[in-house]
Amino acid sequence: MDDSVKHYCGLFGVYGHRDAARLTYLGLYSLQHRGEEAAGLVTWDGKTKTMHAHKAMGLVSEVFNEQTLHQLPGRMALGHTRYSTTGASTLKNSQPLVVTYAKGGLAVAHNGNLVNAYELRRDLEAHGSIFQTTVDSEIILHLLARATNASFDDDLVECLHKLKGAFSLIFMTERELIGARDPNGFRPLCIGKLNKTTVLASETCALDIIGAKFVREVQPGEVVVIGPSGMRSLWPFKEQSTDLSHCLFEHVYFARPDSLVFGESVQAVRVKLGRQLAREHPVKADLVMPIPDSGNFAALGYSLESAIPFAIGMIRNHYVGRTFIQPAQEIRDLKIRVKFNPIKEIIEGKRLVIVDDSIVRGNTTRARVKSLREAGAKEIHMRVSCPPTKFSCFYGIDFPTKKELIANTLSLEEIRKFIGVESLGYLSQEGLLKAVRQPADYCTACWTGQYPIPFGGEGDKYALEKTSGQGCR
Amino acid sequence: MDDSVKHYCGLFGVYGHRDAARLTYLGLYSLQHRGEEAAGLVTWDGKTKTMHAHKAMGLVSEVFNEQTLHQLPGRMALGHTRYSTTGASTLKNSQPLVVTYAKGGLAVAHNGNLVNAYELRRDLEAHGSIFQTTVDSEIILHLLARATNASFDDDLVECLHKLKGAFSLIFMTERELIGARDPNGFRPLCIGKLNKTTVLASETCALDIIGAKFVREVQPGEVVVIGPSGMRSLWPFKEQSTDLSHCLFEHVYFARPDSLVFGESVQAVRVKLGRQLAREHPVKADLVMPIPDSGNFAALGYSLESAIPFAIGMIRNHYVGRTFIQPAQEIRDLKIRVKFNPIKEIIEGKRLVIVDDSIVRGNTTRARVKSLREAGAKEIHMRVSCPPTKFSCFYGIDFPTKKELIANTLSLEEIRKFIGVESLGYLSQEGLLKAVRQPADYCTACWTGQYPIPFGGEGDKYALEKTSGQGCR
Amino acid sequence: MDDSVKHYCGLFGVYGHRDAARLTYLGLYSLQHRGEEAAGLVTWDGKTKTMHAHKAMGLVSEVFNEQTLHQLPGRMALGHTRYSTTGASTLKNSQPLVVTYAKGGLAVAHNGNLVNAYELRRDLEAHGSIFQTTVDSEIILHLLARATNASFDDDLVECLHKLKGAFSLIFMTERELIGARDPNGFRPLCIGKLNKTTVLASETCALDIIGAKFVREVQPGEVVVIGPSGMRSLWPFKEQSTDLSHCLFEHVYFARPDSLVFGESVQAVRVKLGRQLAREHPVKADLVMPIPDSGNFAALGYSLESAIPFAIGMIRNHYVGRTFIQPAQEIRDLKIRVKFNPIKEIIEGKRLVIVDDSIVRGNTTRARVKSLREAGAKEIHMRVSCPPTKFSCFYGIDFPTKKELIANTLSLEEIRKFIGVESLGYLSQEGLLKAVRQPADYCTACWTGQYPIPFGGEGDKYALEKTSGQGCR
Amino acid sequence: MDDSVKHYCGLFGVYGHRDAARLTYLGLYSLQHRGEEAAGLVTWDGKTKTMHAHKAMGLVSEVFNEQTLHQLPGRMALGHTRYSTTGASTLKNSQPLVVTYAKGGLAVAHNGNLVNAYELRRDLEAHGSIFQTTVDSEIILHLLARATNASFDDDLVECLHKLKGAFSLIFMTERELIGARDPNGFRPLCIGKLNKTTVLASETCALDIIGAKFVREVQPGEVVVIGPSGMRSLWPFKEQSTDLSHCLFEHVYFARPDSLVFGESVQAVRVKLGRQLAREHPVKADLVMPIPDSGNFAALGYSLESAIPFAIGMIRNHYVGRTFIQPAQEIRDLKIRVKFNPIKEIIEGKRLVIVDDSIVRGNTTRARVKSLREAGAKEIHMRVSCPPTKFSCFYGIDFPTKKELIANTLSLEEIRKFIGVESLGYLSQEGLLKAVRQPADYCTACWTGQYPIPFGGEGDKYALEKTSGQGCR
Repeated sequence: MDDSVKHYCGLFGVYGHRDAARLTYLGLYSLQHRGEEAAGLVTWDGKTKTMHAHKAMGLVSEVFNEQTLHQLPGRMALGHTRYSTTGASTLKNSQPLVVTYAKGGLAVAHNGNLVNAYELRRDLEAHGSIFQTTVDSEIILHLLARATNASFDDDLVECLHKLKGAFSLIFMTERELIGARDPNGFRPLCIGKLNKTTVLASETCALDIIGAKFVREVQPGEVVVIGPSGMRSLWPFKEQSTDLSHCLFEHVYFARPDSLVFGESVQAVRVKLGRQLAREHPVKADLVMPIPDSGNFAALGYSLESAIPFAIGMIRNHYVGRTFIQPAQEIRDLKIRVKFNPIKEIIEGKRLVIVDDSIVRGNTTRARVKSLREAGAKEIHMRVSCPPTKFSCFYGIDFPTKKELIANTLSLEEIRKFIGVESLGYLSQEGLLKAVRQPADYCTACWTGQYPIPFGGEGDKYALEKTSGQGCR
Repeated sequence: MDDSVKHYCGLFGVYGHRDAARLTYLGLYSLQHRGEEAAGLVTWDGKTKTMHAHKAMGLVSEVFNEQTLHQLPGRMALGHTRYSTTGASTLKNSQPLVVTYAKGGLAVAHNGNLVNAYELRRDLEAHGSIFQTTVDSEIILHLLARATNASFDDDLVECLHKLKGAFSLIFMTERELIGARDPNGFRPLCIGKLNKTTVLASETCALDIIGAKFVREVQPGEVVVIGPSGMRSLWPFKEQSTDLSHCLFEHVYFARPDSLVFGESVQAVRVKLGRQLAREHPVKADLVMPIPDSGNFAALGYSLESAIPFAIGMIRNHYVGRTFIQPAQEIRDLKIRVKFNPIKEIIEGKRLVIVDDSIVRGNTTRARVKSLREAGAKEIHMRVSCPPTKFSCFYGIDFPTKKELIANTLSLEEIRKFIGVESLGYLSQEGLLKAVRQPADYCTACWTGQYPIPFGGEGDKYALEKTSGQGCR
Repeated sequence: MDDSVKHYCGLFGVYGHRDAARLTYLGLYSLQHRGEEAAGLVTWDGKTKTMHAHKAMGLVSEVFNEQTLHQLPGRMALGHTRYSTTGASTLKNSQPLVVTYAKGGLAVAHNGNLVNAYELRRDLEAHGSIFQTTVDSEIILHLLARATNASFDDDLVECLHKLKGAFSLIFMTERELIGARDPNGFRPLCIGKLNKTTVLASETCALDIIGAKFVREVQPGEVVVIGPSGMRSLWPFKEQSTDLSHCLFEHVYFARPDSLVFGESVQAVRVKLGRQLAREHPVKADLVMPIPDSGNFAALGYSLESAIPFAIGMIRNHYVGRTFIQPAQEIRDLKIRVKFNPIKEIIEGKRLVIVDDSIVRGNTTRARVKSLREAGAKEIHMRVSCPPTKFSCFYGIDFPTKKELIANTLSLEEIRKFIGVESLGYLSQEGLLKAVRQPADYCTACWTGQYPIPFGGEGDKYALEKTSGQGCR
Repeated sequence: MDDSVKHYCGLFGVYGHRDAARLTYLGLYSLQHRGEEAAGLVTWDGKTKTMHAHKAMGLVSEVFNEQTLHQLPGRMALGHTRYSTTGASTLKNSQPLVVTYAKGGLAVAHNGNLVNAYELRRDLEAHGSIFQTTVDSEIILHLLARATNASFDDDLVECLHKLKGAFSLIFMTERELIGARDPNGFRPLCIGKLNKTTVLASETCALDIIGAKFVREVQPGEVVVIGPSGMRSLWPFKEQSTDLSHCLFEHVYFARPDSLVFGESVQAVRVKLGRQLAREHPVKADLVMPIPDSGNFAALGYSLESAIPFAIGMIRNHYVGRTFIQPAQEIRDLKIRVKFNPIKEIIEGKRLVIVDDSIVRGNTTRARVKSLREAGAKEIHMRVSCPPTKFSCFYGIDFPTKKELIANTLSLEEIRKFIGVESLGYLSQEGLLKAVRQPADYCTACWTGQYPIPFGGEGDKYALEKTSGQGCR
């Protein structure tokens, strides 16, 4: 994967632990890959009856220190990591959002993207709502606050019912921690237990880091309410019959390989993708090499299936982070070597199979191929562990626009020439689906254009695109 | 004045200058004394149709730098300095607040305190409003957004009409800069001109810093709308007959001596207070000394009237700011010397008249008197340029609670003994009022308990006190 | 005083207090006016046998916090505030300097300027010394380390004997705290006592802040050694007969008014300067006004002598510090109003006597006069409490070069016209000397060009000027 | 490798490029693994005749930004990354050191450890040298400055001749960039070319990042002087016959796998170590897994030789860096999961071969084994790609003390039990040496105790240990 696909959001919540903030801090560390540009943590301290919050731009390691954690007391905590557009004005958009309303304090963190955000917001504004951010979560809070049912449970059901699109949510009230997933199940959300403490997390790797046991996923369409008397479920969408549409890109790229997502081991799916890729696009070669680390498991799969030896032929510099200073024009084209250095002694004179999870814009892949060629590769065969990415995602991934996706502007042969390889093989749609157990339960819109949730005319779409990128979806 | 009275807020707005943010930055510098704990600046850039904002905890010099000012383009700007309670959670309360709603972008900055904030907020929450801060300004924005008139002017009139209490406000919409003052005229707000640029500011010293000419004050009850076609006025309270109640404490302590406030020169009022003090409480002494800098002008007045020579007998260390590290217990009682050092050579063997603007808790005054005594003062006569402060303020000043005000717990003689002086004289209520031209137009509630705007029963009052200190009032 | 004369250095040392670092931190606060650009603090902790140091660019309040003070344990401490040229490379020049050499650990802090620095350094380099800084203190350390006497006392005497020029020094060894003054006594250095703790400080105001009692000054030519068995004196220059040459500019401008310096009260000298000024340059006027705060006491003296009322007619903005962002060209000429604002109500229609301690380049004075004129002053009579400053200082003050000093390029009448006043009066040389008790004991080189310590030919002078500004002198 | 072995230093120098500082910044990025705690960069700007330096604690990405690079003009640059002990006082020890002396400006950066540092320093101090740091480099500078030859080349030869131990050095004078290596060739240093620019670097990966071509290594005992007239060599040790003793630990652990070091590809040596390990310690197992990333290539070698499939069974969290906040005691033992998370689906029920490059203290290995066991591993066979580490290094590696090295306190069987594995196999000494082409040219002291450069009695050794850890060796 090159740099052009932005990650989105990671969620983590703790109910019933005296060190709730620290557990959440750890959880956010393991969800850092889901959002590198801002982090936030909110706790509820029953005594002072106040929600304590700390949010800032930056990595988890930059946002929190001993002092800030000390100022987050309480036995309930909710944390969030997010991708966001750059700029000074975006701190306001960082999550969790925290408000007070008629029923008390309330915090929410969101992963996903509402397709009816524009209509909902326009409607709320028409009724006098004010918006201090541009994130969907604020819409959800307004809907909750305007609900007038006797119980919070009923408010929640009424509010969620109005949402269309992809949403995994964690709410924190003054009494309860609540996880919710849209009926399609686009984004993951799981439940864990650490002794008497209950945990909600985007991925199971966040349970592992604190030693919590995986209990189960929050079901698509389910609302899980965790409170003093245990855990109960609400089903706001039970009368609907919604087909599942898990995001298959979570397996291909987003989720951490050591996570369980949608009931399957991410690394295992990736190995299967690599094996299938070897079956569909065999080639005579000396070595199979991943683009580290995104291609690691698919490359292992390709190697296992093809019996071509697996090799680590590029070293990734993990120190190169967000604050890297671009060199002046004259030495600009060195850029790729900064993050990845090919090992000449391994590559020289070899026929290579290079495996990655996708080609988005193509420039980064092209530059890497060039540096392998300079290191002496005799042949380079590129293999991609999913079909060509051609369509925008409206359910939570911030791809480049359709025009920028190379698969929309060039033919397969043109892409092969552009990136400069001897052969290029994408995994087929059928091959892709073979890697998961329940292929019918997945969304493949970014490859097929078949969107599981329709959205109206061009007007709507324009609205969505106009506001896309403003928030964490 | 000792440290126990918190300043409150300073407002500054610019309409029609290509360097609007920099002018506002300068304006905020001169209003720093009205709020040392947070600062914010919002601009409107007609091209990108976005409000740009930068807010942070700290002094103006800490909050802004070249880079942040560069990111605030536009010809309209609105800035705010504020006092706030300490703690990590308070950034959210910093002003100006910026929102979008049905009619576009909107920013507001507030100086004062609504006495019906609790009712308004409860009512808004009952109708589904959510609150992300605890400042009154957010209530005002909700009211504006819920108004359903044809024009923004009408919305404004409807909204302001609902407010009770003290408010000087500056709004910034996508087209106009708007200043508003409550009909009592509690807090100051003035209009200035710099060539074709119009400026609004809490005090005239902020006009001086940018070389703007003072035009006039925004009238009590007036709304001044500054837009492409010039300036016009709205009068939301015209059917009411409201007595004026300017805050006399602005003259006694808050405002900068080089400002014009409520039509009078602050330093001139202070000199008159000092002269009257000398008439009411004459004493034989060698020197008249101010507590620098709060007592400077009253001491000058006392000296002029009494013909006792004026002296500067204490040096104030202006480097001691918010980040001072408290020494360990053993050397804790050195504290007072850190900020003020008496000059032994001046004081030794002398009979001193010490002039300050108030005694609030008494501890600081007591410590200063002690250090003068140690420096060899033969006699110390304390003179205070206003009557004993006995009552809480509900219109925008954050005094200590009634119990903490020394004048409520000790008699005059007991206070004299507590602070350790040979004689103690407070200015009389009559004497106080003589210093201003229109005494009937002032609020003197903190000395008399006669509150110009009543508030309901104990319930209300409790609500107010519960939330006092949460916002900038 | 305008901004063109740079302050130089403040020294503070503590012997025998378990909170030595915190006392020194306080002491540095009160010596901040002697050097605003860097601060350093070194302690000796007998247990770990290590000197602990913390130095950084910035004000005392910026350089130290709880954590850095915690890391400075020990019963001996040495601190320094300094002026330095700007730029990233200057941290290396910040003091105290700390080294180890054959006899153990050693720290030194310096106020003053050696006139034979260039020769000493050239000679040391010729013998193989390396220099990591450009401050004179490093030369002194090299000389000490190269001394080969049996005792440290003898090394000290040998080393100091070689120094020519102005030096007040504090050394800290592993056993003793040592204060030294050049035989001319150019710069001040005093001894204080706080119970059993001994303190050395540049000015007595630093004793006051920690409640220490003033004992006496370190004598010119004296070395005071404070150790486990009390205090003893060395006299390295006893065979010389050196005339005293205290820096009179300390009284006129540098020292804090609440300090005792060279046996006299600074404020008292300034009041006398002002009285004499009134005698020499009387004028019919309505008000006497200081340029705050540098002209305060001279203005008081002028007022007392002339019986013209004293007034505070300009408000100084103490929030404007080192980080002020310059406004764009268009609003650049507003600059002066940022720091000082004249009070129109006081000034309008009045004949003013304006008192300041000096005119260096003239631009700042000119701008202030202009703003007073705009505020309506009818007449402005400028009075300066010392003669025209015409000569560079080689003993520790960083004046502009001779060419930049306005008194060298313009006649009195031309200066009067340049700054734009009705009359201009400088104090006479005789008048200046009348203000101190022992006029013969003072250096007046910056006014007279009579340098008490000669320096060789042009070569030397060039060397000095070449390196001037590199260190803290 | 667990965390107990500290890296040491990386060197990078540029001669003749207008963007010398930026190239060095990039070079330091690729040498970050050799020192994570401080970084420094010095440039020489022929025009202003000044060395510009910027040094600070932290990673390269934290130490430098656009502004600091802008302040480092010039066509020559010298950079350094280092490990150092923590604490506020260590900035002074960061390199390059920069001084001026009789012959002008001089900077030096050092990788290695002098065994006669104590004697040299004692001798220099006895002759009056002062030391401002505790790094060996300062000794070298003193020696250079005290040399009195006609030419700098002769000074250099005289100075280097006195050094005993391990040293790769880069000097920068006002005219030349100079690389030097001790005659044993302990530490690497190589020469590269980028068009007309010459580069010196600790490892070839630093040439790759800027696209420079590898020319050759600086020879053991060679001094390479790069100046206006090209490159020439000096041979200060030519009369000596010194056996080579390259640090074999560079291949085993320190150097980056994509570097060439001592004429061999680091990754290739590691693969050979793994193959030999498989031959020496075969076992029936299902998977070969590296401890990422230190065991990667040895594990690949083991897998290739044994034909047991290679697997990635632990995910390393690269976001966990120096600022990680330790969780409270209760959740402390979660620590290991923070950095490494085993993948249960891969491990469960499997017989694993775990490959790492060493076991130092043993605790970290034990914790990782435990977490693999919890993830369901059926059998765990630990394989280490070098012999047991038993002896301290005096040539530049900061191992724990002998007592802390687990191989000195426990037998093989005891270590096996302690870390909790079914079998444990260390590579033999013979096997280790087979992996390199010229085994006789390597130092193996940390495994064998056979030190190529002897040092005197216990006195000396104590001195070395006393000062060990103070500097970057």
